[in-house]
Amino acid sequence: MPQTDRFKKNPGLYLFLPLLYMVWEDAVLTPSEIKSLNQVIAGLSWLSEEEKKILLAQIDPSSPPSPDEFKSWLREIRAVTDQTSTKKESLADLGLKLAAANGSKVKPEEVKPSLLQMEASLGIISRESAFYFSNERGTQTGKQSTQHSFSVDTLADILDGDQKDTIQKVKILLSDPEFKYIDSDNLNAYREKVLQWCKHLATQGCGSMAYPKEYGGQNDMAAYFAIMEALSYHDLSLVIKFGVQFGLWGMSVYFLGTEKHHKKYLKDIGTLELPGCFAMTETGHGSNVKGIETTATYNHQDKTIVINTPSEIAKKEYIGNAALHGQKATVFAKLIIDEKDYGVSAFVVSLRDKSGKTLPGVTIEDCGRKMGLNGVDNGKIHFNQVVIPMEDMLDRFASVTAEGKFSSPISSDNRRFFTMLGTLVGGRIGIPRSGLSASKSGLTIAIRYGDQRKQFGPEGGAEVPILNYRTHQRRLIPLLANAYALHFSLNYLTNRFLKRKEEDMQEIEALAAGLKSFATWNATDTLQECREACGGKGYLFENRIGTLKNDTEIYTTFEGDNTVLMQLVAKSRLTEFRQEFSNMNLFGILNYVADQAKTSITEKNPIIVRSTDDEHLLDFEFHLHAFKYRERDILTSAARRLKRLIDEGMDSFDAFNVSQHHLVQVGFAYIERIILEQFISSIEKVKDPGCQAILKKLCQLFALSQIDKNKGWYLEQGYMEGAKTKAIRKLVNQLCWDIRQEAVPLVDAFRIPNALLSAPIALKK
Amino acid sequence: MPQTDRFKKNPGLYLFLPLLYMVWEDAVLTPSEIKSLNQVIAGLSWLSEEEKKILLAQIDPSSPPSPDEFKSWLREIRAVTDQTSTKKESLADLGLKLAAANGSKVKPEEVKPSLLQMEASLGIISRESAFYFSNERGTQTGKQSTQHSFSVDTLADILDGDQKDTIQKVKILLSDPEFKYIDSDNLNAYREKVLQWCKHLATQGCGSMAYPKEYGGQNDMAAYFAIMEALSYHDLSLVIKFGVQFGLWGMSVYFLGTEKHHKKYLKDIGTLELPGCFAMTETGHGSNVKGIETTATYNHQDKTIVINTPSEIAKKEYIGNAALHGQKATVFAKLIIDEKDYGVSAFVVSLRDKSGKTLPGVTIEDCGRKMGLNGVDNGKIHFNQVVIPMEDMLDRFASVTAEGKFSSPISSDNRRFFTMLGTLVGGRIGIPRSGLSASKSGLTIAIRYGDQRKQFGPEGGAEVPILNYRTHQRRLIPLLANAYALHFSLNYLTNRFLKRKEEDMQEIEALAAGLKSFATWNATDTLQECREACGGKGYLFENRIGTLKNDTEIYTTFEGDNTVLMQLVAKSRLTEFRQEFSNMNLFGILNYVADQAKTSITEKNPIIVRSTDDEHLLDFEFHLHAFKYRERDILTSAARRLKRLIDEGMDSFDAFNVSQHHLVQVGFAYIERIILEQFISSIEKVKDPGCQAILKKLCQLFALSQIDKNKGWYLEQGYMEGAKTKAIRKLVNQLCWDIRQEAVPLVDAFRIPNALLSAPIALKK
Repeated sequence: MPQTDRFKKNPGLYLFLPLLYMVWEDAVLTPSEIKSLNQVIAGLSWLSEEEKKILLAQIDPSSPPSPDEFKSWLREIRAVTDQTSTKKESLADLGLKLAAANGSKVKPEEVKPSLLQMEASLGIISRESAFYFSNERGTQTGKQSTQHSFSVDTLADILDGDQKDTIQKVKILLSDPEFKYIDSDNLNAYREKVLQWCKHLATQGCGSMAYPKEYGGQNDMAAYFAIMEALSYHDLSLVIKFGVQFGLWGMSVYFLGTEKHHKKYLKDIGTLELPGCFAMTETGHGSNVKGIETTATYNHQDKTIVINTPSEIAKKEYIGNAALHGQKATVFAKLIIDEKDYGVSAFVVSLRDKSGKTLPGVTIEDCGRKMGLNGVDNGKIHFNQVVIPMEDMLDRFASVTAEGKFSSPISSDNRRFFTMLGTLVGGRIGIPRSGLSASKSGLTIAIRYGDQRKQFGPEGGAEVPILNYRTHQRRLIPLLANAYALHFSLNYLTNRFLKRKEEDMQEIEALAAGLKSFATWNATDTLQECREACGGKGYLFENRIGTLKNDTEIYTTFEGDNTVLMQLVAKSRLTEFRQEFSNMNLFGILNYVADQAKTSITEKNPIIVRSTDDEHLLDFEFHLHAFKYRERDILTSAARRLKRLIDEGMDSFDAFNVSQHHLVQVGFAYIERIILEQFISSIEKVKDPGCQAILKKLCQLFALSQIDKNKGWYLEQGYMEGAKTKAIRKLVNQLCWDIRQEAVPLVDAFRIPNALLSAPIALKK
Repeated sequence: MPQTDRFKKNPGLYLFLPLLYMVWEDAVLTPSEIKSLNQVIAGLSWLSEEEKKILLAQIDPSSPPSPDEFKSWLREIRAVTDQTSTKKESLADLGLKLAAANGSKVKPEEVKPSLLQMEASLGIISRESAFYFSNERGTQTGKQSTQHSFSVDTLADILDGDQKDTIQKVKILLSDPEFKYIDSDNLNAYREKVLQWCKHLATQGCGSMAYPKEYGGQNDMAAYFAIMEALSYHDLSLVIKFGVQFGLWGMSVYFLGTEKHHKKYLKDIGTLELPGCFAMTETGHGSNVKGIETTATYNHQDKTIVINTPSEIAKKEYIGNAALHGQKATVFAKLIIDEKDYGVSAFVVSLRDKSGKTLPGVTIEDCGRKMGLNGVDNGKIHFNQVVIPMEDMLDRFASVTAEGKFSSPISSDNRRFFTMLGTLVGGRIGIPRSGLSASKSGLTIAIRYGDQRKQFGPEGGAEVPILNYRTHQRRLIPLLANAYALHFSLNYLTNRFLKRKEEDMQEIEALAAGLKSFATWNATDTLQECREACGGKGYLFENRIGTLKNDTEIYTTFEGDNTVLMQLVAKSRLTEFRQEFSNMNLFGILNYVADQAKTSITEKNPIIVRSTDDEHLLDFEFHLHAFKYRERDILTSAARRLKRLIDEGMDSFDAFNVSQHHLVQVGFAYIERIILEQFISSIEKVKDPGCQAILKKLCQLFALSQIDKNKGWYLEQGYMEGAKTKAIRKLVNQLCWDIRQEAVPLVDAFRIPNALLSAPIALKK
């Protein structure tokens, strides 16, 4: 006889049905639980022996209810469940209603205590179980959805600033069918396509934008950077190929050469008539590029220079444009005159003739397939005693006189080299801006997908957009805040560079090195999270996240390895911007520490240390104070530590190595403070109240999530107490929850055209 | 007249030469510094007016010394520098020696104070500057090198354990030229090659290893997992293709089917005579796979089942082996009988005939190129009313009776589905083991490269292996410790699975979900660090890190999204392993919290809270206590929080969402404790003292770097004070420094054959 029929005959048993349903829905009962239930049941005086037997049979693991019977239980329970009230009924309540509906005469007050006891002995929280029988559950999680509190166009205009027209023009250009993405399977076809794209852009005057008007340019460096930024919404091989040609190759001629070189080369570089390379890195020397071994030997007899690769590891490596298209290259080599080494200088060297044939003495290998950027033809170059005319030495900072003597306004070889590098700092601005655009693409894809993709939901309720889940928000929303934060600080860096004076260069170089590191690491992190946040869809080529990740992956390495750069930032900070990059001595540290000691350090205020007040925690003044405190404290302690180690007799090189991890933190603390400061001051300038309000929230999230990330440090220092860091974590979660509602309009404000975004999961329907 | 000549005439000026050298080497003087030096010089009574004039000319930024002159200064200073003493001379000392050598009669005691004052006013730390003039600097950083304190073979044998022969056999097999890597440019060629490789492995009996002997297998599940691990040193597309065929497809027939299915299919699956798929995921349902929409409708008339895809998003997606090779598939679909839905069951459905032609009613699209694993032919499958015989229902857990009634030993559809999934938990063991092998490959490449690659060094000294730099060590060495830690805990998981009993399944499922998440995230992190640690070389295809990263990237998503899995672990923990995965109710929480309250919590001991003693900090007992404290505290607070929210009237679904971030931490804390426990207990079993000693160090590093990572939490809780967390950070650095010396032998002990490693930068010369 089906068990339900037995219930019909003994309607008092209906009291137990909801409880039994949960037992069988949930898990097989353990022997000890069965035992405990047996005891409870045995003690139920108002049950007949037969009823007890039936009931015990219901919890016997070897005789489960049949699936059909089980389904009928659910229907019966749902039928008596109050579907309108928000107050959920306990399993006991439902049992009583069921029993009454089936004609049982038991008195509720008599049986309810026993039922509740059984519930408790199973550990079932009745309210939770009761949710199970709702037909519909209007959860807060389910209700959250996209809202608009600001004008997307206004915010987009704020982001584009005075480069709006340039950016718009590039976006229109790239949306042309000519720029349709191609797959990367065929390396040759891909590389040729990227070259063609660059030529198209050159035709439109994009390539020569920063060059002087007399050489076909617009003398507009600001527009050049905006072009790099906008191009980076498209294929990143295109960006890098473009950057190699017009940035590295062109700018090295422009900044390291003099008028004769500009006249001879710049126009053809800007039109891509003359494709070229920037040949600095060697197999043996990447980060420590000052140690390159290629030689440029002066020949007194015919006043020429001989470029030579002395060993296997002195080959130029990873050189963009080298494997296929480059006809010339700016080659960095040690200038040797009369067997004396005058340090690194730069020379224009021919690689191929117009037909693409490699010239005698030049041997080029293809670097082959890479993790990304496969549209760029990187190569390895070997020079075998290649003779170039004297006039092809780029002689702004060093030259050879008519008498064959070395001449330079800078006495030290090291300083001369780093001064040369300093003029090329633009690369460390273009790359983070490109990385940021890639991050924006990734965020647009992941956030739009997260807003549409539904998965899971309350039992008996509808599925919920995955962006409504807290972990998903914690994953993506702080990175959205980072993207906005970086946007403003990279604009600041660009402006500092555009208005640079000689005496600002040390600071600008440190800013560029630090922001380049922060922004490119952030791009790597962002695209990683975006990939995971899109699950399997994020893994498909068509949705572009993988390509964006792989293409930008090398951004953390080229234009300076990030870890090395962060140490340079630290050294620059240690000497109050007075030191040349990568100089290993401690000039100035003593001064700095002395100055710091004089500066009155704001005492840790016990009220502030503990304050968990929302108003305080959301206040920019608190954020700035926390960031600055951290910056100053880490810097001062690093300086003291280095001094102590050296005073104790440690070699300065070892002292720096022992402190390396600390020094990287010096760099981070500095850059984070700069980013926060620039974000806040940019927000102050925004006139539109809606935009200002949402930017303020993003800035609060940026600040608090950085503090949350560094909470270990703040707690160690006693700058905050645990109650405060916990309150901050809660606020970070709350801000993510709030901003999630505007996340879609916030990525819409990046204004990335559909044709460029391309990912099917991200296209607006 | 060259300035040096003026020095010769006024030998007293030589006193200043070292100081001047540093000034010009370092940076252009600021106007205020020039002013201050002017004042000092004006006050030097022992200089003549002419000498003062000459000296002032030396610091005039508009007239720097010529590069040649500057070089001659260095030569002169080096000539008087004591190159043998380890005690470095100050600039003043060197100036005095130079002056004396050039015939100056000044009295040291008269001039030295002024010289030191000038040094100080420039902020030069003399000892640092003096390092500049050494010909050679034997730094500690430079001296660190690879040592051997244990036998690599013994350690390798410990790692391989009782699977040594199987692993060795697979490695030899894969080292055959037939298994030479091919590039991934041509999708078709790559996919065919991977299929061929699988066939080779099948010929060797690898595929059927876990199947019963009567169906051609060895009934050896342990060996099957070892094969997966060893294959993962090779191309990961091969591993996944292999896993799809023999694991997902074969095991689903094996575990979800009954004898008739085993007889019909297993032998041909094991030989790859019958390539097949595992068709569970749909476009609309990935993580929430219980919600799939494909239907399997029972037809009473001819007792068949009709498989149908009701909508676009109900297509099976990402199905491995589907785009090209699969002839059959285990298809998961909701069984419908008489319009009643009986939840998800599994069915064998034919996709293609022997010739590879797709069968009527089946439509397959190619998922196309992916971020990685391009040797696997993933596809999208659509079924249009495809009729299958009743006998192809995999009927271990559910069946249809001869009378057309649904029958199952498990009453609840949910529970039945999760029980089915539970039998397939092996996939969550194979994947993390595969991810770990990929991590080991990455670490072997990056650590061997870091040991050989030299970059930077002290001024005037030799370049230093990059693995000697502290940041590089901090990057790689803790990940090496993680790899070892995970090795032992994945072995533990495997053994638990092999010896599983019904009542262990809940715990094993939680272990597998947690370790799968931890290990695959760790693989992603490890390969990311390895790529960056190898710089440009890491970006080249030939060095394989990019491929390893891209191929394992999806490991964090498939076999269960890691974030979702960690929440399942937390839920399992919350109900003391009594809950089914993904069941959203709170059964058992109350019990758990009550139990916890009873457990006497070890009081925070103020001495322990502050102890920074090395012996204490390196003690496994301390580590275990810290891990367990964290695990218990986070779990208890999560349970309390959920209970409070629900008691306050929040819908349980919302309560779980509010606590999601917290719950993920519950999962981590649990898994980290398991990993530590298993690492420690494995070390106790090691008999070789050398191996035991190095494993102990790795385990200490694992434990302390986890504590360091979580220090914010420990400080918040007051479990440790700042002095202690600082001491731990210092120890982490120290352990990295110590283990770096054995890092190469430690990766050698992974015993990855050169043919498989393949990366030119990692091959032993």
